[in-house]
Amino acid sequence: MEPNLLPDERIDQLYGADIKIIQSKTVFSFSLDAVLLADFANPDRTRRGLTVDLCAGNGAVGLFFSPKTKGQIKMVEIQPRLADMARRSISLNGLATQAEVLTMDLNDVTTVIRPDSAAVVTCNPPYFVDAPTSQKNPNEHYAIARHELTTTLADVINAASGLLKMTGHAYFVFRPDRFLEMMTLLQAARLAPKRLQFVYPKPGREANMFLVDAIKDGKINGLKVLPPLTVADNEGNYVGHVRELLYGNEAQ
Amino acid sequence: MEPNLLPDERIDQLYGADIKIIQSKTVFSFSLDAVLLADFANPDRTRRGLTVDLCAGNGAVGLFFSPKTKGQIKMVEIQPRLADMARRSISLNGLATQAEVLTMDLNDVTTVIRPDSAAVVTCNPPYFVDAPTSQKNPNEHYAIARHELTTTLADVINAASGLLKMTGHAYFVFRPDRFLEMMTLLQAARLAPKRLQFVYPKPGREANMFLVDAIKDGKINGLKVLPPLTVADNEGNYVGHVRELLYGNEAQ
Repeated sequence: MEPNLLPDERIDQLYGADIKIIQSKTVFSFSLDAVLLADFANPDRTRRGLTVDLCAGNGAVGLFFSPKTKGQIKMVEIQPRLADMARRSISLNGLATQAEVLTMDLNDVTTVIRPDSAAVVTCNPPYFVDAPTSQKNPNEHYAIARHELTTTLADVINAASGLLKMTGHAYFVFRPDRFLEMMTLLQAARLAPKRLQFVYPKPGREANMFLVDAIKDGKINGLKVLPPLTVADNEGNYVGHVRELLYGNEAQ
Repeated sequence: MEPNLLPDERIDQLYGADIKIIQSKTVFSFSLDAVLLADFANPDRTRRGLTVDLCAGNGAVGLFFSPKTKGQIKMVEIQPRLADMARRSISLNGLATQAEVLTMDLNDVTTVIRPDSAAVVTCNPPYFVDAPTSQKNPNEHYAIARHELTTTLADVINAASGLLKMTGHAYFVFRPDRFLEMMTLLQAARLAPKRLQFVYPKPGREANMFLVDAIKDGKINGLKVLPPLTVADNEGNYVGHVRELLYGNEAQ
């Protein structure tokens, strides 16, 4: 199906997952964070449970995750312009029976999706606190995606916990400088971190991202710290697993 | 000076730090944890502040750290047999004016060392909870070093916090499965984690150790996650920085 593209839009392809996605530099483009989160997240054992992606943006995480599950995928995005892009990308990939987009505030999500019903929640939340002094992108779409203008980390985590059934998994990608805050909020919201993976931009650099897998009503022990994920070599070329995700097997 | 060695003792050398240490397999031997902790810990800016090593064992951490500082080093160890080994190692390395061993329970340490007086506290605490079901080493010396028989993680962290002056640094080495517990206890004890490093036994394996640097009365933000430290290659040979620490420049 040929999608209707607006003048500022283009279609990108993620070769590792064979998914096409409508992008727009003037509104929002998915980044490596979304690719890594969709790869890190696992479907439930039956592969038929409900997956909810919060702060869905143009739908990248839900789209990239879709080949892993046969269950329904609901994407929650507050910005109508981005939600519309996500909807058209769903059509473009022939996923209209599996995936849908809810244009709404995630604080109200359990008025539309039943509480305690999701097997998996994924989220790539805004990274930056909305401090009076913080420099925000003058483009409102980017500002909302990056700064906590319409939501906070606590809201996102509480929404995820409210959606998940017991032993359901929440998957987040976030920044190390707010790592401790996230760990505290997760535990306060009945989400026990079970797997952590730190992402390093190049060899010898500090981590600039982490992925966390938390279980609703799981026990707070037995945390596993997965092998480090290094994105690129010293020359900036994608390497290893990240290269495979972005370029597929052609990368070999 | 020739040390008096008991029948079960030998002298080992850490080439990276040019330190000799009296060891005994039948009582306790230092492990890689101590080497990595002493390397990870930094002296205070003046290099004249007080350093306290808790759960000192045979003194490995304090001895390996000693070349980095001109300040006093006090080692606290509850087991007289191990404290005696540490004392003789101090003499063996000609450090009697810089270092001393206190044979005591760390819960009482501030009766001997003034509270809020240390610039640096290091600690390689017992890793395992003393659960009724846990398998303990029948050798009491090892059992006390490994299991929380005479102390708990909370006791250790509170003792460290009590000893440190404001903006002093506490350095710990611990196991990932109790990572979240340690982060919670540190923050509850006014110790803000600032630097984290995960240690991986081989490429592609989960972390089996982590190092943390926490500042007394520091702010809970701006955590840095240092590049991963991989101990050995797939064949089990020490590599990179760990190899240098163990064998010194001869490793090149």
